[in-house]
Amino acid sequence: MTIEVTAGEPRLDALCVLAGQVRELMDAVALTDVGEEELTAVTGELSALTGRLRAAARTTPQPFEVAPDGTLRHLGNAVTGAANPHALPLAVERAPGGGVRAELVFRPLHEGPPGAVHGGISAMILDHLLGQAVAAAGLAGMTGTLTVRYRAPVPYGTPLVATAEHTRSEGRKSWADGRIALPDGTPLAEATGLFVTPAGWLQRGPAGQ
Amino acid sequence: MTIEVTAGEPRLDALCVLAGQVRELMDAVALTDVGEEELTAVTGELSALTGRLRAAARTTPQPFEVAPDGTLRHLGNAVTGAANPHALPLAVERAPGGGVRAELVFRPLHEGPPGAVHGGISAMILDHLLGQAVAAAGLAGMTGTLTVRYRAPVPYGTPLVATAEHTRSEGRKSWADGRIALPDGTPLAEATGLFVTPAGWLQRGPAGQ
Repeated sequence: MTIEVTAGEPRLDALCVLAGQVRELMDAVALTDVGEEELTAVTGELSALTGRLRAAARTTPQPFEVAPDGTLRHLGNAVTGAANPHALPLAVERAPGGGVRAELVFRPLHEGPPGAVHGGISAMILDHLLGQAVAAAGLAGMTGTLTVRYRAPVPYGTPLVATAEHTRSEGRKSWADGRIALPDGTPLAEATGLFVTPAGWLQRGPAGQ
Repeated sequence: MTIEVTAGEPRLDALCVLAGQVRELMDAVALTDVGEEELTAVTGELSALTGRLRAAARTTPQPFEVAPDGTLRHLGNAVTGAANPHALPLAVERAPGGGVRAELVFRPLHEGPPGAVHGGISAMILDHLLGQAVAAAGLAGMTGTLTVRYRAPVPYGTPLVATAEHTRSEGRKSWADGRIALPDGTPLAEATGLFVTPAGWLQRGPAGQ
C-alpha cells in the first residue's frame, strides 16, 4: 500500500510508514502459525519497541488539521488515518459524478463470519463515508442516525468500492446514502445516515466522524 | 487488561498475550511524539518481527470453535477476538436480568471527533453485541439491518457499559435492542438490529458476526 503524505513533513511521513508497518504486523499476528516459544520471544521484543515509542508521547492522536498544501486531513482518525494503525486506512476522494468514493480491500484481520468481513466493520466504514459525503457537499456534522442494510457477505482480500452521496438537507440536518459494492457495482451493504450540524459549528468545521 | 484463555492451551495463551502487546504498540504509535530517526528505527525492527511471525502462516484467523471446556469462542474475531489485535477485545457475558453485557474502555486510538470515539466504532461494537443477544436467546443469524442512534459523544479512556437483549422473533427473523452507556445507565448510542438465520443453519450454528 502506498502511503501518501504531503511532501516536506519527514517526521509525519515516517510516522505513517510506521503505522503501515504495524498494520502488517497485525495481519501477521492474525494469521501466524509459529510456535509458542517464538510467539513469546516476539512479544518480548515488541514490549521493548513499545517502550521506545512511549519515551515521548502526546495525549491525543494526530488532530484534524489543515495540511501545508491547504487540504484538510485527520491522520489520527480511527477509520481513515494513515498515522493510526487501527485505520484501514481509507482514502476517500471526490467521485466524478458527485459524492465521494473509496477503493478498499479488507483483510483477514477484519473477519467476523467465516471468510467474510465483520458486519460491524462494514458499518464503521459506511458511517465514515456518509459523513464525508455530507462534508463534500459543504456541510459538516456528527452522525445522528445510521442505518445499514446487509445484502450479501462482504469478502476480504478482494478489491471493493465504497461510494456515498449527500441526498438532502433541512436546516441543520443532512442525509446521505452510501454502499460497499463489488467493482461491477453489485451492492453488498447499503446505508442511509442522518447528520446533524451542531448549532455552534461553522460550515466546514470539524469533520472527524 | 487480563486475557482469559482456557487452561491447557499454552500456544493459544501466548498468541493472545502477543495480540495484547500489539494493541499496546498500536496505542503507542497513535500517541508517540518521538523523532523521525527513532520512528524509522522502530519500523525497521517491526519489519523483522513481522517476518518472523510470517515464517509459518494460516490463511484464515483463529476460527469459531468449541473450546476444550465446551464453551464457544472466536479468538480471531475482528471485534471480540483476544487473538486479533484489531479487536477491542470485547468480553461479552450473560446479563443477570437476561440479554448480554460487556464492560469496555475505548482508547485514543478509537478517536473520530476530537476527544471522542468514532461513531463507526460505536456502530461496530453495537452490531456485534446485538448479534450476541440474539445468540444468547438460542438463535443465530447474520445482521440484516442495523440502525444506530447517536445520543451523545462517546468518550474514550473511561469505563462504559454496553448491553443488548433479544426483543422478538418471527420465523427466521430476530430483533434485538442495545446501547452503549455511562456506568450510571445514561445512553450514549442506541441500536436496533434485525438478524436473519440462514435457512440451512442449525440453531446455535456459526455465531461470528
